[in-house]
Amino acid sequence: LKIFSLSSNRALAQEIAKFIGVELGKCSVNRFSDGEIQINIEESIRGCDVYVVQSTSDPVNDHLMELLIMIDALKRASAKTINLVMPYYGYARQDRKARAREPITAKLVANLIETAGATRMINLDLHAPQIQGFFDIPNDHLMGVPILGDYFKSKNLYREDIVIVSPDHGGVTRARRLADRLKAPIAIIDKRRPRPNVAEVMNIVGNVEGKIAILIDDIIDTAGTITLAANALTESGAKEVYACCTHPVLSGPAIERIQNSNIKELVVTNSIVLPEEKKIAKIKELSVAPLLGEAI
Amino acid sequence: LKIFSLSSNRALAQEIAKFIGVELGKCSVNRFSDGEIQINIEESIRGCDVYVVQSTSDPVNDHLMELLIMIDALKRASAKTINLVMPYYGYARQDRKARAREPITAKLVANLIETAGATRMINLDLHAPQIQGFFDIPNDHLMGVPILGDYFKSKNLYREDIVIVSPDHGGVTRARRLADRLKAPIAIIDKRRPRPNVAEVMNIVGNVEGKIAILIDDIIDTAGTITLAANALTESGAKEVYACCTHPVLSGPAIERIQNSNIKELVVTNSIVLPEEKKIAKIKELSVAPLLGEAI
Ligand SMILES: Nc1ncnc2c1ncn2[C@@H]1O[C@H](COP(=O)(O)O)[C@@H](O)[C@H]1O
Ligand SMILES: Nc1ncnc2c1ncn2[C@@H]1O[C@H](COP(=O)(O)O)[C@@H](O)[C@H]1O
Repeated sequence: LKIFSLSSNRALAQEIAKFIGVELGKCSVNRFSDGEIQINIEESIRGCDVYVVQSTSDPVNDHLMELLIMIDALKRASAKTINLVMPYYGYARQDRKARAREPITAKLVANLIETAGATRMINLDLHAPQIQGFFDIPNDHLMGVPILGDYFKSKNLYREDIVIVSPDHGGVTRARRLADRLKAPIAIIDKRRPRPNVAEVMNIVGNVEGKIAILIDDIIDTAGTITLAANALTESGAKEVYACCTHPVLSGPAIERIQNSNIKELVVTNSIVLPEEKKIAKIKELSVAPLLGEAI
Repeated sequence: LKIFSLSSNRALAQEIAKFIGVELGKCSVNRFSDGEIQINIEESIRGCDVYVVQSTSDPVNDHLMELLIMIDALKRASAKTINLVMPYYGYARQDRKARAREPITAKLVANLIETAGATRMINLDLHAPQIQGFFDIPNDHLMGVPILGDYFKSKNLYREDIVIVSPDHGGVTRARRLADRLKAPIAIIDKRRPRPNVAEVMNIVGNVEGKIAILIDDIIDTAGTITLAANALTESGAKEVYACCTHPVLSGPAIERIQNSNIKELVVTNSIVLPEEKKIAKIKELSVAPLLGEAI
């Protein structure tokens, strides 16, 4: 068994290797002068079960090409199996044709990965579980909820005071799962637009008054949805608002919005590396290394 | 017949469309906040023969993903055929395993393009003609030599004064082709390293004394090879040195090296767009639009 890290999540890969009790495999990932990726695997892997740790987070196209080129090199060097540990699956939101003549990039990415020669995938909280069906190779789908739940348990919030809130209809199942772990009720932010070109109404289904609300989502990207939801919760009488997600994409105005919001703490995992400038005091990062290490 | 441009070569695509006498197809290529590519094809293409113009030049991974996502969208929108006009094929230099455990990225890219659903390829001066064999779909391979040759003819250099020079052994066939068009003899720069860790010796095979030397290569990247070759030619008595290539990659120190070199003029094609800061007076750009338009 050999574990290699590409450039998206080196610290996580290191942690996973330590968890399993092996050294990280030696390989260098560089750029030629014109920006093309150059990968050199610096130890024999013939006949080995190889694991490659890489999230296709921003810069998504570079991280994806690194991964595909690495798979190609491993295949040509006679690896026995090529297993991808991909905590964050980029392009997952382009998983259907919402309008005519749209691509389904999440499926394209699955095809590219299989074409390159991967033999197994380990993912964490795919935006839609249906993406598993985009692959013909074995696919293990892990969830961040237990890790997020354990953290909130460790905070010793009074159980009867908590309500788990889904920021939209699509996330209710996830909220239910976290609620089960924390033995708490759920609520749902029910957005609707009464007429076209009229502002959305944020209605809350469920009781949040006087409670500690914990918002949960899979991805927080520009943080628009989550901060508006947090406002609506406070307006409806929630005592405190926490938020959590598996994948902290946090692009564009996200950090500013979170900083200025009424969210007390945002709990995320290290499926995507937070650069230093995004590590604000409000954000708590949990490691998925043990979870991924177990799955290997 | 519909022609679409992605973001690498919009002016060239426009020129090709004009040459053929059609309007460019409407499609938008944008980025989501997190850097993921969003493509919308804004007119029906059902049952059409579609041509997509895109070079996989720097930023190569972004340009390649744009192309793959576009192919996916066209395929799902029921295009009859999907024809790629790819004047510059990125990753072409990674076309073999020069060392153990290297990828063959040029073949990987061919597989990715076929997997996405392209049905035909039009290329210009592939770094190695063998790359045609990496594809199972039909592949037309065009050459820049006639365009470069016609330009030098139009300069009315005295025929008996010219010598066409290949900067290395690999390019002799290309030099021979240009020499045929200009009815000139050839010479070859014969680099060799007498012992390890000793500087290379630039020996010239052929007669350049008192002549106008025209160096030809397929790609000029950092311009190290071509400027050293130009020096060697002057030292061996060449009267003037011109250089030409199909693909002006011109990365890193290239522009500075060319500017400071004894190369009188560098003639290139628009297979790769030159950004404003690289458009120095010494560089002459020729269009491949008629050549590509004919091939469509
Ligand atoms: N990277 C992205 N950033 C923002 N929106 C996206 C992204 N990728 C896809 N989408 C859009 O998000 C929608 C799907 O999100 P969802 O409804 O949460 O599954 C689709 O309309 C997509 O066009
Ligand atoms: N983008 C690139 N920039 C510079 N060198 C490259 C690039 N891609 C591949 N190479 C190397 O160039 C060599 C092949 O070039 P050539 O001998 O001209 O075919 C191989 O050793 C490659 O490792």
